[in-house]
Amino acid sequence: MAKVNKLKIIPLGGLGEVGKNITVLEYKDDIVLIDCGMTFPEDEMLGVDIVIPDITYLFKNKDKIRGMVLTHGHEDHIGAIPYTLKRLNIPIYGTRLTLGLLETKLKEHRLDNVKLNVVKHGDTVKLGKLNIEFIRTGHSIPDSSALAIHTPVGTIVHSGDFKIDYTPISGDVTDLHRLAELGQKGVLALLADSTNAERPGYTMSESTVGDTFMDIFSRSKGRIIIATFASNVDRVQQIINAAELNNRKVVLSGRSMVNTTTVAYELGYLKVQEGTLIDINDMDKYRTDELVIITTGSQGEPMSALTRIAFSEHRKISLLEEDLVIISASPIPGNEKTISRVINKLIENGTEVIYEALAEVHVSGHARQEELKLIHTLVKPKFFMPVHGEFRHLKSHAHLAESLGMPSENIFILENGQTLELSKNKANIGATVPSGNILVDGLGVGDVGNIVLRDRKHLSEDGLIVVVVTISKQERKVVAGPDIISRGFVYVRESEDLMEESREIVKNVLIECEKNNITDWATLKFNIRDALRTFLYGKIKRNPMILPIIMEV
Amino acid sequence: MAKVNKLKIIPLGGLGEVGKNITVLEYKDDIVLIDCGMTFPEDEMLGVDIVIPDITYLFKNKDKIRGMVLTHGHEDHIGAIPYTLKRLNIPIYGTRLTLGLLETKLKEHRLDNVKLNVVKHGDTVKLGKLNIEFIRTGHSIPDSSALAIHTPVGTIVHSGDFKIDYTPISGDVTDLHRLAELGQKGVLALLADSTNAERPGYTMSESTVGDTFMDIFSRSKGRIIIATFASNVDRVQQIINAAELNNRKVVLSGRSMVNTTTVAYELGYLKVQEGTLIDINDMDKYRTDELVIITTGSQGEPMSALTRIAFSEHRKISLLEEDLVIISASPIPGNEKTISRVINKLIENGTEVIYEALAEVHVSGHARQEELKLIHTLVKPKFFMPVHGEFRHLKSHAHLAESLGMPSENIFILENGQTLELSKNKANIGATVPSGNILVDGLGVGDVGNIVLRDRKHLSEDGLIVVVVTISKQERKVVAGPDIISRGFVYVRESEDLMEESREIVKNVLIECEKNNITDWATLKFNIRDALRTFLYGKIKRNPMILPIIMEV
Repeated sequence: MAKVNKLKIIPLGGLGEVGKNITVLEYKDDIVLIDCGMTFPEDEMLGVDIVIPDITYLFKNKDKIRGMVLTHGHEDHIGAIPYTLKRLNIPIYGTRLTLGLLETKLKEHRLDNVKLNVVKHGDTVKLGKLNIEFIRTGHSIPDSSALAIHTPVGTIVHSGDFKIDYTPISGDVTDLHRLAELGQKGVLALLADSTNAERPGYTMSESTVGDTFMDIFSRSKGRIIIATFASNVDRVQQIINAAELNNRKVVLSGRSMVNTTTVAYELGYLKVQEGTLIDINDMDKYRTDELVIITTGSQGEPMSALTRIAFSEHRKISLLEEDLVIISASPIPGNEKTISRVINKLIENGTEVIYEALAEVHVSGHARQEELKLIHTLVKPKFFMPVHGEFRHLKSHAHLAESLGMPSENIFILENGQTLELSKNKANIGATVPSGNILVDGLGVGDVGNIVLRDRKHLSEDGLIVVVVTISKQERKVVAGPDIISRGFVYVRESEDLMEESREIVKNVLIECEKNNITDWATLKFNIRDALRTFLYGKIKRNPMILPIIMEV
Repeated sequence: MAKVNKLKIIPLGGLGEVGKNITVLEYKDDIVLIDCGMTFPEDEMLGVDIVIPDITYLFKNKDKIRGMVLTHGHEDHIGAIPYTLKRLNIPIYGTRLTLGLLETKLKEHRLDNVKLNVVKHGDTVKLGKLNIEFIRTGHSIPDSSALAIHTPVGTIVHSGDFKIDYTPISGDVTDLHRLAELGQKGVLALLADSTNAERPGYTMSESTVGDTFMDIFSRSKGRIIIATFASNVDRVQQIINAAELNNRKVVLSGRSMVNTTTVAYELGYLKVQEGTLIDINDMDKYRTDELVIITTGSQGEPMSALTRIAFSEHRKISLLEEDLVIISASPIPGNEKTISRVINKLIENGTEVIYEALAEVHVSGHARQEELKLIHTLVKPKFFMPVHGEFRHLKSHAHLAESLGMPSENIFILENGQTLELSKNKANIGATVPSGNILVDGLGVGDVGNIVLRDRKHLSEDGLIVVVVTISKQERKVVAGPDIISRGFVYVRESEDLMEESREIVKNVLIECEKNNITDWATLKFNIRDALRTFLYGKIKRNPMILPIIMEV
């Protein structure tokens, strides 16, 4: 039985997409999970709040699960954990800040009694026959880790999210020595971050952004409002540093900004001088040139603090003359228009806005091609599986590995749910297990699916017409209606003729059906829908959803 | 009466937005229009096909209108003309290619009897007291023009869309000599393109893209499929050039590609050797390395030829091994995700894809900062009004003018509908006239507005619940229902309990109303909606549209 001695690597999320990262490692009767993240809905997932991975496979194999190890505390790596823990009880291992951020999240979901085990870089956790070693890496949040998974068939290195920053803010330089040592000893397979695999060169150091902040802060005469990701703790640290050096107080705005920063501060990952952070209600005790506001909303999210400030809807922050707004982030693909809308509104108000197109106020937290080459060269894996990215990113990363001399048959681009089976000298793609997107809408998890989304799309594009008729069963005739109600279709007032004509169409169908003695409501509904659809499309080239309802009395 | 001697410049579109360009010039009893373009709907304009300008002001002043002059043949400058000509009869002036493209459009709308007057660069058209001179400019379509409008109060220069390309494909180098001459004589005001005003440096020459094509074509072993904008005639020319030099035949795919290319070819703006263009049905007569397909779909539009090819839904083109796809365009902001979806699908199919991130396969048709500085310096206007762009672009352009020494009080950033009033030495902002977006949905023009869009948004996010009850008027009691029908809300099969509970909620409201003798249907509906909304939000944190319908028998 050769099969039982294989190590299986099964990505349940994170491949062919950005976010929702979760990977299963399985050896005989032991399963270990790496991360369990969420992602944001695609445009066509109308009304959906977040997307989490389908964990059917875990549920079916729950007795094998020994634990979950976390690479870092970003939402795309920890955001789906509460949903998983509601169904499965799994002990969790991660660094201190990572677990600190997770804890807040678990509290919001009222999950107590979760075993959270703090791990330090250099530690190894034994979970069944798998030994997971945490290796320090640099990323845009402190306490990030790569993982070396020591297994009976060999060592697997998982990069986590990382970049090579020689002058990081947190002090977390990626532990190149340990990676080199592992490479020297022999690594069976590398799983590495592909987010920036299309981009040539190096990602700039986070500290370059700090230099820009210092420039801007020293010449600004009014208040400074900076939007960034709450989870970008290093960026927040740099804003605080620049504020302190320029004698400014710092106000935090936006729920996630307050939460994340508080956790990072309490655990000692943010260095803040006594008195720097002030309450939002104490702002008026200071001159405008003594203030910096750090806020959420760098993606132009409609309900975020920055958007509310721009559109004068923030309860505590109104724009003032000489305010300077800095957007310290890149638009995530798909958000270009929402953030542009906020920038335009701010500029219209007369506010100066500095964003990526105008100055170096953002750098990525992910490695570009030259950094990836360094990792591949140090780790010298036998096999390679690109992770974290859309297919185009994975493919670019595969090209990069080939360009370094790796045989293409040793490179595996998987899809979510596929299995990479590894033995000491061999790798192949094995069975496919269930995987996919579970949509979270309000409190509903998984109750919105394709049919619901298809209906929402239909309704969103052409609106709705409801036709109601009451029919007497005994007399076999219409006793009330047809009434026609529309929503999202046309201005009814300006389209009275159209609605009246529609009523006539339905009336004719009813008469026709009465004549032909049709008492089967399904047929009657079909005929109403068909006649009305043909009429409306011919008249105004639109296809509203038509909902015939027949009441029987 | 000083007022009657003023020249009014009124942008009815194109400011604070990209597209929908239309400008009114008014002097005493004469009105001349510059361009009349369309734009694409914003995300929140659900189901809308295109957006055109509100021309209420023109309709009110129709007796004054002497004509419309066109700067070039792109949709954002001519796309709304058919809608305007259905309401107003206006003679139109433009260069040959511009009018050729417009003609096709007018035919589609079955508009005959439109007076189209062909103008050559250097010509001046006299329209009332306004003399409009057409000046050659370089842009991504041949036959583009800037305009010098000679008026009794002075000369106005309108840049149209332009770039400074010293080695253009069409041979159309922007006529710097004439602009210099006008500057020397004195220009009262400049209106100039702001699309790329945020970008430093120069836009590369279109010919650099041709060099890349030659590189790629000479090393490709299979078929080449290139997606670009149909309206980018110079790009199509370069693809044809590279095809001919590499002994490849050219197939056109996509309706707009065929239409635009045919017009450009017939009017002599595309140079194509006999036999280069072949019919799509003759493709199988050639080896794959003898073929180039030029297609629409560079933005990943769901119904476009490239998208259908990628998803194996194209009737005549199936992907083959060794096919190479080139996306020769930038994503328009907001389209990043749709184009990425197509790229990912192609790569998943094993097709090589070259796009802007990987090679120089696209350049912009719009001037960057250094080119704008050249125009400002040559034209030396007294007043300046940035046009064509979102507010952030207009603002950047204003900054640029200031950096060249123009006093800030001579720079006017207007909003659509505002009037810039000019006399020989003075400029000021005058009255505001009606302006705005008219939404085109199917054949309906303007019958979709805020209420309809608000309903579509609501329906798209949380779906719909229809509650129907039939009530006997005489007996004052419910005789049928309540029936509850939902769409786009939840999977009904998995949520039977929820629907049953909802029915109970409504029943209780009905009983309560019967008890309290409420016979006012508005109150009854309000109570049903209110009770159900509270119940559902508490239960699953969603707010579907609730539509209570009461039938009386």
